[in-house]
Amino acid sequence: MYNNKTYTAEILAVGTELLLGNTVNTNAKDISRVLSELGINVYHHTVVGDNPERLKKAAQIAIERADIIIATGGLGPTHDDITKETLAELFGKKMVFNEDVANKIRNFFKKRLHYVVMTDNNFRQAEFPEDSIILENDVGTAPGCVMEVNDKYIIMIPGPPRECRSMLKTGVIPYLTKLSNSQLYSHNLHIFGQGESVVEAKLRDLMQKLTNPTLAPYAQDGEMMLRVTAKAGSKEKADAMIAPIIKIVQDTLGDVIYGIDTGSLENTAAMLLEENKMTIAIAESCTGGLISKRLTDIPGVSKIFNGSFIVYSNF
Amino acid sequence: MYNNKTYTAEILAVGTELLLGNTVNTNAKDISRVLSELGINVYHHTVVGDNPERLKKAAQIAIERADIIIATGGLGPTHDDITKETLAELFGKKMVFNEDVANKIRNFFKKRLHYVVMTDNNFRQAEFPEDSIILENDVGTAPGCVMEVNDKYIIMIPGPPRECRSMLKTGVIPYLTKLSNSQLYSHNLHIFGQGESVVEAKLRDLMQKLTNPTLAPYAQDGEMMLRVTAKAGSKEKADAMIAPIIKIVQDTLGDVIYGIDTGSLENTAAMLLEENKMTIAIAESCTGGLISKRLTDIPGVSKIFNGSFIVYSNF
Repeated sequence: MYNNKTYTAEILAVGTELLLGNTVNTNAKDISRVLSELGINVYHHTVVGDNPERLKKAAQIAIERADIIIATGGLGPTHDDITKETLAELFGKKMVFNEDVANKIRNFFKKRLHYVVMTDNNFRQAEFPEDSIILENDVGTAPGCVMEVNDKYIIMIPGPPRECRSMLKTGVIPYLTKLSNSQLYSHNLHIFGQGESVVEAKLRDLMQKLTNPTLAPYAQDGEMMLRVTAKAGSKEKADAMIAPIIKIVQDTLGDVIYGIDTGSLENTAAMLLEENKMTIAIAESCTGGLISKRLTDIPGVSKIFNGSFIVYSNF
Repeated sequence: MYNNKTYTAEILAVGTELLLGNTVNTNAKDISRVLSELGINVYHHTVVGDNPERLKKAAQIAIERADIIIATGGLGPTHDDITKETLAELFGKKMVFNEDVANKIRNFFKKRLHYVVMTDNNFRQAEFPEDSIILENDVGTAPGCVMEVNDKYIIMIPGPPRECRSMLKTGVIPYLTKLSNSQLYSHNLHIFGQGESVVEAKLRDLMQKLTNPTLAPYAQDGEMMLRVTAKAGSKEKADAMIAPIIKIVQDTLGDVIYGIDTGSLENTAAMLLEENKMTIAIAESCTGGLISKRLTDIPGVSKIFNGSFIVYSNF
């Protein structure tokens, strides 16, 4: 049984380094992917610098248009790290020192960071908005937390991508799965040799008509795919809902679909070669090693890939 | 003489694929970097989906807190591509068909995409808000444009990263340079074999002291560089300001600086080979074509690069 409420979330990345163009906001992608798989709608990403006034205004805008804010960044020990204090103040919560977390930070420094000097600043990481749920950080010193305020949920997780991904898995997904009580399942149809606009023209009516499952196009690196996504109580039920849609798409597009859930063109080629116990050698000219490089990015490809000649020169 | 006004810009990326976590918003990084180098402040990035109402509201918020909006994405030929029409409507502009651009699109399809069927949709790319400045697209069919409305500037550029980067160079930088009437000049010191934190520790005092020129570190693809940037009325004046800073950095770091303005390690190697009338052949194992690929990404490299053996297999 589903929770009837469909939640909306906004991702709020905090960090001046993002605004200066020194860093790509990969956290927004990782968090969005997770939310999409949980069936939570994401309508906005916002990035704001380490500035309390601008952060408050951005969070105020976010909470008016979403049920859930996932804030990433600004949980570190330096004076630039202002997310917890600022959002606590905005939502009328006091900051409270947590002795358990302080002990964990002490132990973390002792065991893993013995070459780093610990300062009083580090203990700011042991302060949280009152009544918040603490999310443990398995790969760093900055724990996350969740504030629940008037049926709105403010989740704060660290900015370093490794810590963000880890806490998504250990803290955020379990919390949100419980909250939203529903799950999405997808299959990807990989297409080659037909432009996005042509594919879309052929399938527009179907795409617009469908609500569950949904059908949507994605373009990436000169390839495109179609994703069929169902909201259902189990993978089996979702697959049964998705199968007839895949059939219609196959009947409409024909053999420009080269694989289902097979990954990229090179992945599919490698898979087929392995299935048929064949190997491949490549002779490249203009591409200068690109095909070989893409193949060797696939783990375990040495089973099917022998080597290449790159014959590039004109003389 | 400089324009005294310091402009503020907001980057507004339009695309549901970003909100679903299928794509990383690298455009926001690329655009932020360019704006930072032009001395334009960026206080917010926003991402919104292909939804006219939400796009309008996001653009309304952006224009209240910034002088310049750079919108990226949603200029393609499909019915999801709504940026131009939506922002034109918000700012009270009609859409006008441009015959020159339509002809360019026809030619582009004829010459470069002969295997793709052209649809009427493609001609939506030839419509622009009235009175807007058109920015040509050298690498795709979607031109960009600039609307000037009450001393605010709305710049729209394509979403595919390659097209975005190209248009930044050919259209956006020239436009903004003229607008902000100040010019920054930079030199890049390329470094290999010393970590960013070590380099930064050695130069921290200097970096913090300098205001014009500035000295800043950039890390990219396992390499790092230092950029010295001066704001000046001419290149000559800027060079004269930059030269003593380069001297100090060279004296401090020694021969870990492998080149100045030479581009990447492979560019520098290719340049040195050509200068010395030498050629290179490569034998690769684990890297599986990556070194050859990086070399052949350099235009004109066939003068120095003959070819490679990739010997990857274990048997």
